[in-house]
Amino acid sequence: MGRPVDQLTPKGAATRREILRAAARVFDAKGYALARMDDVVSETGLTKGAVYFHFKSKAALAHAVVDDQKQGMLAHVRRQLEGLGGPAAQVRGLVPVLVDLVIAEPAGWSVVRLDRELTTESPQEHAQVSVLAEWVGLVEELLLAGARAGDLHFSADAHALATVFVGAFDGLKGVLEATGRANPEELRRAAGVLAEVIEATIEAH
Amino acid sequence: MGRPVDQLTPKGAATRREILRAAARVFDAKGYALARMDDVVSETGLTKGAVYFHFKSKAALAHAVVDDQKQGMLAHVRRQLEGLGGPAAQVRGLVPVLVDLVIAEPAGWSVVRLDRELTTESPQEHAQVSVLAEWVGLVEELLLAGARAGDLHFSADAHALATVFVGAFDGLKGVLEATGRANPEELRRAAGVLAEVIEATIEAH
Repeated sequence: MGRPVDQLTPKGAATRREILRAAARVFDAKGYALARMDDVVSETGLTKGAVYFHFKSKAALAHAVVDDQKQGMLAHVRRQLEGLGGPAAQVRGLVPVLVDLVIAEPAGWSVVRLDRELTTESPQEHAQVSVLAEWVGLVEELLLAGARAGDLHFSADAHALATVFVGAFDGLKGVLEATGRANPEELRRAAGVLAEVIEATIEAH
Repeated sequence: MGRPVDQLTPKGAATRREILRAAARVFDAKGYALARMDDVVSETGLTKGAVYFHFKSKAALAHAVVDDQKQGMLAHVRRQLEGLGGPAAQVRGLVPVLVDLVIAEPAGWSVVRLDRELTTESPQEHAQVSVLAEWVGLVEELLLAGARAGDLHFSADAHALATVFVGAFDGLKGVLEATGRANPEELRRAAGVLAEVIEATIEAH
C-alpha cells in the first residue's frame, strides 16, 4: 500500500494526506474504473514521482483512500458512542450516530461507492483491509459487553448478529441509492425503522 | 433499452435471449467498466449489426441483463412464496427462499455486482428500473396484507420496514463479500439470524 506512514517526515505525511484528498475527489468524480493515476497527479499539482513515491498503483491509492476515510469515520463513531455511556446505550446510539455522520459527511456516500467498486474489482485483496470487518468487530464487542452486563438480551450468536446489523445499515444506504432516495429525510426515516428493528431484537429473550 | 420485446418475432426473441446470456458472461468476467460491446459481439458469434439491433449501447445492454435476471429471480420467488400460504407465512419464508435462490443460482452474486456497478455509473437512469424497488414493493405488499389479516404485528410504516428488510438482505450479501465470507455456509448462518431479527420485529406490538 505504499510507504509505511510512520516512516514519513512531517512534510511527507502532509503530502500523503494531500494526495489522499485529491484522489478522493478524482475517484468521486470519475469512478474507480475510469480514474487514472495521471488525473490524481494533475489534481494534486505534484510531480508524478512524488505521487508514485507514496502510492505504487491506482489500486493501492484507492484502498488507502477508503481506509483513511473509513478509519476516520470509525474513530469518530467510537468517540461519539463512548460519550453515550455503557454498551447497551452505545448499541442503541449506533444508528443515530451513523446517520448523523453520513448526513454531515457526504464522503460517507462516496466512500461506500468506492469501497464497492474496489470490492467488485479485487475482492480477495480487499477482504484483508475491509473496514466493514472492523464495524462488525465493534458492534460484536458492544453486543457481548451489553449481554455480559445483563443489559442486552438476544439469543443469536453475537458475531452473526453484528454482521446482520452492519449489513442492514450498509444495505439500507444501497437500497435508498438504488431507488433514488439517497437524501437526509429518507435516510432518517428508514434508519429510524432500522433502530426499532434492532431494539426489538436486543430486547428479545 | 433497445427494441420493445413484444414487437420481436420468435426468432428475434431467441436472439435477444442469446445476447443477454452472452453479455451476462462478459460482464461477469470483465466487470462493467472494462467490458466492451465488441466482447459481447465476439461472445455471441453474431454480427455487430444484429447485437446493436437489439441493444444500442453497453449501458442499455447491461441494464437489460440486470432486469432480465432479476425479473426472473423475482418471478421465481413470488411463485415459491405463494406455495407457502398466507402473507405472514410468505414474510417468514422470504429469507429462506432468497437464500436457496442465491445458493442455487450463482448469478445471484454476479447480478448484485453488476447492479452495483451500474448504480454507481448511472444512478439516475438506473433508479427508474431498479428491481430493488420491486422487491421493496413485494415485501411491503406482504406486510400490509399480513397486518390486515391480523397475523403480523408491527408499529413501523410498512414501506420503510420493507426498505429495511430488503436492504438488510442485500447488505448482508455485501458484508459477507467484503469480509471474504461469500459462501453458502456463512450465508445460511447469517441469514438465519436475519430471519430471527425479522421475526422479532413482526411480532412486536
